[in-house]
Amino acid sequence: MEKIIIIGAGLVGSLQALYLAKKGHTVEVYERRNDIRKQKLVAGRSINLALSNRGWKALKRVGINTVVEKTAIPMYGRIIHDTEGNTTYQPYGLEKEAIYSVSRGGLNQLLIEEADKLENVSFFFEHRCLDIDVESNTIIFENDTREIEVKGDRIFATDGAFSAIRARLQKRDRFNYQQFYLPHGYKELTIPAGENGSFLIEKNALHIWPRGNYMLIALGNNDGSFTCTLFFPFEGEYSFESLKTEDEIDNFFKNVFPDAYELIPNLSKEYQENPTASLVTVRCEPWNYEDKVLLMGDASHAIVPFYGQGMNSGFEDCSIFDDILEDNNLDFNKAIPEFAKTRKKDADAISELALRNFIEMRDLVADESFLLRKKIEKKIFEKHPNKWMPLYSQVTFSHIPYSEALNNGLKQEKIMDKIMAKPNIESLWDSQEVEDEILSLSANA
Amino acid sequence: MEKIIIIGAGLVGSLQALYLAKKGHTVEVYERRNDIRKQKLVAGRSINLALSNRGWKALKRVGINTVVEKTAIPMYGRIIHDTEGNTTYQPYGLEKEAIYSVSRGGLNQLLIEEADKLENVSFFFEHRCLDIDVESNTIIFENDTREIEVKGDRIFATDGAFSAIRARLQKRDRFNYQQFYLPHGYKELTIPAGENGSFLIEKNALHIWPRGNYMLIALGNNDGSFTCTLFFPFEGEYSFESLKTEDEIDNFFKNVFPDAYELIPNLSKEYQENPTASLVTVRCEPWNYEDKVLLMGDASHAIVPFYGQGMNSGFEDCSIFDDILEDNNLDFNKAIPEFAKTRKKDADAISELALRNFIEMRDLVADESFLLRKKIEKKIFEKHPNKWMPLYSQVTFSHIPYSEALNNGLKQEKIMDKIMAKPNIESLWDSQEVEDEILSLSANA
Repeated sequence: MEKIIIIGAGLVGSLQALYLAKKGHTVEVYERRNDIRKQKLVAGRSINLALSNRGWKALKRVGINTVVEKTAIPMYGRIIHDTEGNTTYQPYGLEKEAIYSVSRGGLNQLLIEEADKLENVSFFFEHRCLDIDVESNTIIFENDTREIEVKGDRIFATDGAFSAIRARLQKRDRFNYQQFYLPHGYKELTIPAGENGSFLIEKNALHIWPRGNYMLIALGNNDGSFTCTLFFPFEGEYSFESLKTEDEIDNFFKNVFPDAYELIPNLSKEYQENPTASLVTVRCEPWNYEDKVLLMGDASHAIVPFYGQGMNSGFEDCSIFDDILEDNNLDFNKAIPEFAKTRKKDADAISELALRNFIEMRDLVADESFLLRKKIEKKIFEKHPNKWMPLYSQVTFSHIPYSEALNNGLKQEKIMDKIMAKPNIESLWDSQEVEDEILSLSANA
Repeated sequence: MEKIIIIGAGLVGSLQALYLAKKGHTVEVYERRNDIRKQKLVAGRSINLALSNRGWKALKRVGINTVVEKTAIPMYGRIIHDTEGNTTYQPYGLEKEAIYSVSRGGLNQLLIEEADKLENVSFFFEHRCLDIDVESNTIIFENDTREIEVKGDRIFATDGAFSAIRARLQKRDRFNYQQFYLPHGYKELTIPAGENGSFLIEKNALHIWPRGNYMLIALGNNDGSFTCTLFFPFEGEYSFESLKTEDEIDNFFKNVFPDAYELIPNLSKEYQENPTASLVTVRCEPWNYEDKVLLMGDASHAIVPFYGQGMNSGFEDCSIFDDILEDNNLDFNKAIPEFAKTRKKDADAISELALRNFIEMRDLVADESFLLRKKIEKKIFEKHPNKWMPLYSQVTFSHIPYSEALNNGLKQEKIMDKIMAKPNIESLWDSQEVEDEILSLSANA
């Protein structure tokens, strides 16, 4: 059994602590911030995330899916809100497939609680990582004003998109690194609960107000409220820069999101007081230093949130690392480099897919031709689920590696481009001819 | 007049000091290393670089081209060495156009000497930049064991590919950053002078031993020696990893670079003792913090050396910044953001071109079809110099912005792809028909 250091007690760090502790290792988790369990999260009202199959699988393997399920809100489809306030519903899957709205803070508390129940896990909060010496596996933390030196057999860095460990690795020779920001940022706003904690819009759906270059979305919380997120350009005609006064904000929302405007009572105050956050993508290589240090989750592959796969891909890191560890007879010396090498292509793929999905969400979900395309795909999927699975389903409801899903999706896109270019596809779409052509193209792709 | 801080007394930093001091500003240059003027450079034997028109223009504007010319060795073309030791010559230009071999250390000494002659320039060596507070224009340096705080009106960061200033900017929100390494590294080797300082191979040419996946090059020094550089994969069948013992090294060189092998007496010793360096590309954005801080040269756009434009693009930064400053009535408030915004596309272009030229140098210069393509281009250039300038000439001998050169080059490549796909192009190449077709395609591109 080894001594494992985990840097960062966020979602991925605390789940990885559970995984490694259940293998019998001594696990120490160091976190820069204070103990999130001591923070009073307003019941159910906090930033929420969409948990889907990859995440559930990773939680299930350490036996904590049932406790998470208790507070997760299933969302069976998208509800699209147009500028008149009209809505349309697009189910995500064929059956009752759903993604689940969960509170980020609540889930993080729960993961730490579960890990902390194990005797061989210790948490150290308010420990800021100052430096790492990878050759000697030594990390220096700052706690209060003291400097503390910690050594471990293996170091897992799950310290997020702005990872201190990765910043050190970046200074080493031949470390490839990229960080880039979207021209859009985001701001959270709140639709409060109705009387007696009732939901003022459909609870079991993800709400989208797509508006071309920007969009608003909303996910439900357990107290009946919804957390809305406005994804909006930093600069330009309609942007965080141009929209500042109470009047500007109110007029904009009245015109562009009229039904949402009615539901957000403190709109301009919230807009003015809540922070505007940026959207970063991080890629790097290698994720490991020899068989000693491994970057996981956002520390190695921070992505934009538009496929709802940031947390899910981080959780999948834990379950896939576990697979690789098992395949190598629990030998970290082999598992760490193998994970770093083989998992990277999947992280790159979901990173790419997440960037593409922003276009789809803010723009295409309200586009006629795009909707027809999706309708055709859905029909083929319903009739031939083994021959054609839409990309969204591959990513969200399957465990197909992200890189394979991306490849499949690119092939499908080419096929559907051909189909959509057919004359009169609007009337032909439901014909046997179109169905046969898709299946034939797909079989030969 | 303002107080200017320059971080880094390398090639670009000391040239920029000259430019700004000649405008009357008070310039302080801080350098991490000790004074390069105090180092004894073995006469003419040191790392050399290829100075070309963009660099000369920038030196000329501050009046130091003539003193540099004294030690620069013109190279009028490439000499290609095959595996039998046979050579072919490819002139770079139509007339006596040349690129110039200069000693990096010697040129750096000279630039510092010239800048130090000015009363309003001060150099501070052994000052390592520890931190910068961009809001207050304050920099903290470490000198010996003391920490020194310096404030300036403007800060120019010319501290190279691993810029400390850029590392600080990278931590700010919405700073896009990328560093990536080639799978190849490089190692320097020496062909010593012959008797009485004679040159054992042609002095006035750049020598290339292209070998597909790797290559050796050589540039002359004033003492009659040549500095050779082996560009070689880090890993793989033939690589720095696989080639280690004296026997391995000797056998490899005997087989692959037979004529060079005869000229490098201490081959295996040099190979084993000289460091292996990596090849990094750096891109970032924005290059400025408001109107106060500006990254220049390698600090903002480190590139691989295969187009011989690293130093030249850095020197061109200085002359173009000067143009922009003049256009804005010497107003730094306007010039700094404008330079950062407009120059970036040209840095991206030369970065791309340098990566592509590695393929050309190590592989294509010995390829029959590639040589024919170049022969056709040269003929058109000779007959119609105003209608067709080869990409290499645009980059090396003109002042066309790099981004335009890249665009022109891509158009030319498409045209030449069409021409090279003609049946019997080998016999047709010199015909009026081919000439007319190229000119017509070019006019319509």
